[in-house]
Amino acid sequence: MIVTELIEKKRDGHSLTYDEIKFLVDGLVNGSVQDCQMSAWMMAVCIRGMTGKETADLTTAMMESGDTVDLSDLPGVKVDKHSTGGVGDTSTLVVAPLVAACGGTVAKMSGRGLAHSGGTLDKLEAVPGVCVEQPLERFKSIVKKTGVAVIGQSADLVPADKIMYSLRDITGTVRSIPLIASSIMSKKLAAGADAIVLDVKTGNGAFMETLEDARKLARQMVDIGGSLGRKTVAVITDMNNPLGMAIGNGLEMKEAIDVLSGSIPADDPLVEVCLTLGEHMLVLSGIAENRSKAREMLVDALASGKGLEKLKLMIAALGGDTTYIEHPEKLVRVDRILPVCAESDGFISFIDSKRLGTSAALLGAGRFKKGDSVDPAVGILMKKRYGEKVMRNECIAELYVNNDERLDEVLSMVKQAIVISDNQPESIPLIYDVIE
Amino acid sequence: MIVTELIEKKRDGHSLTYDEIKFLVDGLVNGSVQDCQMSAWMMAVCIRGMTGKETADLTTAMMESGDTVDLSDLPGVKVDKHSTGGVGDTSTLVVAPLVAACGGTVAKMSGRGLAHSGGTLDKLEAVPGVCVEQPLERFKSIVKKTGVAVIGQSADLVPADKIMYSLRDITGTVRSIPLIASSIMSKKLAAGADAIVLDVKTGNGAFMETLEDARKLARQMVDIGGSLGRKTVAVITDMNNPLGMAIGNGLEMKEAIDVLSGSIPADDPLVEVCLTLGEHMLVLSGIAENRSKAREMLVDALASGKGLEKLKLMIAALGGDTTYIEHPEKLVRVDRILPVCAESDGFISFIDSKRLGTSAALLGAGRFKKGDSVDPAVGILMKKRYGEKVMRNECIAELYVNNDERLDEVLSMVKQAIVISDNQPESIPLIYDVIE
Repeated sequence: MIVTELIEKKRDGHSLTYDEIKFLVDGLVNGSVQDCQMSAWMMAVCIRGMTGKETADLTTAMMESGDTVDLSDLPGVKVDKHSTGGVGDTSTLVVAPLVAACGGTVAKMSGRGLAHSGGTLDKLEAVPGVCVEQPLERFKSIVKKTGVAVIGQSADLVPADKIMYSLRDITGTVRSIPLIASSIMSKKLAAGADAIVLDVKTGNGAFMETLEDARKLARQMVDIGGSLGRKTVAVITDMNNPLGMAIGNGLEMKEAIDVLSGSIPADDPLVEVCLTLGEHMLVLSGIAENRSKAREMLVDALASGKGLEKLKLMIAALGGDTTYIEHPEKLVRVDRILPVCAESDGFISFIDSKRLGTSAALLGAGRFKKGDSVDPAVGILMKKRYGEKVMRNECIAELYVNNDERLDEVLSMVKQAIVISDNQPESIPLIYDVIE
Repeated sequence: MIVTELIEKKRDGHSLTYDEIKFLVDGLVNGSVQDCQMSAWMMAVCIRGMTGKETADLTTAMMESGDTVDLSDLPGVKVDKHSTGGVGDTSTLVVAPLVAACGGTVAKMSGRGLAHSGGTLDKLEAVPGVCVEQPLERFKSIVKKTGVAVIGQSADLVPADKIMYSLRDITGTVRSIPLIASSIMSKKLAAGADAIVLDVKTGNGAFMETLEDARKLARQMVDIGGSLGRKTVAVITDMNNPLGMAIGNGLEMKEAIDVLSGSIPADDPLVEVCLTLGEHMLVLSGIAENRSKAREMLVDALASGKGLEKLKLMIAALGGDTTYIEHPEKLVRVDRILPVCAESDGFISFIDSKRLGTSAALLGAGRFKKGDSVDPAVGILMKKRYGEKVMRNECIAELYVNNDERLDEVLSMVKQAIVISDNQPESIPLIYDVIE
């Protein structure tokens, strides 16, 4: 096969075979396909699209480009959960232990935050001592013992994705549904779970800003999972507003602990999304007959504190200091807490989640390039939600600050991100659709 | 400006401003725009296209990426001629001295052959002693003295094109009319001529296989020339068949000498294309009032031998041994000449020019990658033209051979490239259109 001919085929809008796609992906990893060639091909994919079969073939070829994890020696259905990334979304830290408390087996490899979007590994590391880089055998033994482990992805999984992702980042080819779907699914499939529940975010704080795009992405990922023999369900949830009230690693870990302690009401959006994702995880695992049975089990595990117990066991197994779970206020000790006040009476009518995520990152909670260090305690704690009534000078959010350097900039960004109007805005759905 | 945003703009089908295009082109040359980024952008251009203004802006930005030649101290209108590349097309070596013999000033920078397509520099170098790399001042003094000089392009002209062309070659982005037009025109404009006559080839041996594409390319190039103040005309000519009978450097130089000696009839396709291109060159130069007056002058210069005299002067000025012009048979001395015979009675109904060009290159006349050396004497001499009647065992072409290594392969390729059928085929026009 000749690389340029394969590029031209996609340029002219034709479909590639599995062998052709594999030739490109393997070539990228072994160096016979150059970065500029893959970049040109991915641009052609961005514009021309790919068929469902091509997307599944690309996912397979990417998955096969490195090691894959074999979890078959663990008992039961291994279930994974993945979010396409949002702001103030600590659902993994709630739902993973909760599902384990209901008898599920959650073996999950997670990522770090980038730009405005948070990452579960950073939140886990807010607990001193936690080590998210664990050898595969240790990972499995934690899952076997506690029913749940969340660790970092091994460097040997899906090397093709690492190269492709870094190229897409600089060549204007990030926003392509087949490329996003294959990037996510190749990693999920390589990580070895039998069943996958996807949380596809849509809205101004998500990568898929429109519901239509979120639906397409969800459909493609569910189809890829199905075609490769993994039970896959996608829940499309709102990311026009931060899901929880906390944005920042220690703040979000504390919020997860608060949820698992039952100190947050059941109609809270974060709790509702966690229960919905958990329902699907338990049904796919074969533990609950249907979603309403699953919800009962999850609510019980919340009320009994069994979910919190699982989180504590997992944190201990990862080397973390569990006194931080018992006393979560230790997670968010900062130099000072600065209130952000409403400048007029009215209703919160718009929240720019992406800007809030970026603001928290500027405070030190996130990174703008790979390898930046993060401060676990800093971030933003929202005091009001979308649609709520506020009075002038009322506190609408708190900044948790250790470093004053860009504080004025952040303060003004946060104020701009939260719009107050005279009239109460229309309500926004929390869960749009389930694709299965 | 942010590179990824400019790439995304073209990806989404929008037009870029001059400043944006210049930012990309300058960035490519100074290293702030990476090869993979330019490759992705060029793929987006391939698929989304560019407006006429964008193409002219790209041409200007490319031209400005390096040195430009100032010919203003030479007297008269400096006229250049360029062919988009074909097989058996030695027209530059005929028309450049012929126009000079009529009083024109031809200052031309030319290229080398690649793949199936020949290049004038290689043909010039078939004459021992010729040096095509000349300093600019020497180039000008030759033009001043003899009215004509054809040399290699200086390395400092249009550095952006060198990088872009080498990327296009490996990223499936060669076949884009705006990219081809800007590549050709940026070099022509940087070389400093006041007027440009373009020979846009169409057919199976050309880069533009369809007449429609050839017309589009011609239109774009003429418009670019006009918008930058250079009088530009494009003649669209046939490249379904080799233009002359010779394919190979010495063979083509000999054919040019034969034409300039008047030993080839005036209705010969090569002669006809040379006269047509020459007409436009003389009219644009302001030397002839109209094309018919120009043709008279050119025919006179052929008959009188003044054109041949100009070629000889130019070859001498470039350091060449002019006894090779006086005795052109010295140009084609090979170990052996192998006839290719018709295998049946009939008519020549199809000639695959591209395959003939590749066959000649395999004999040693051409190169498959930059820097390959060429054998000046070898190649293919056609004995029959498209549409001609042939008899079984009649010689239809001769292979001029110095190296037997791939001879069997070449012989079978040449036989396959010349199809003989029972019925006389329809005639094909030689000149399709003039775009001005």
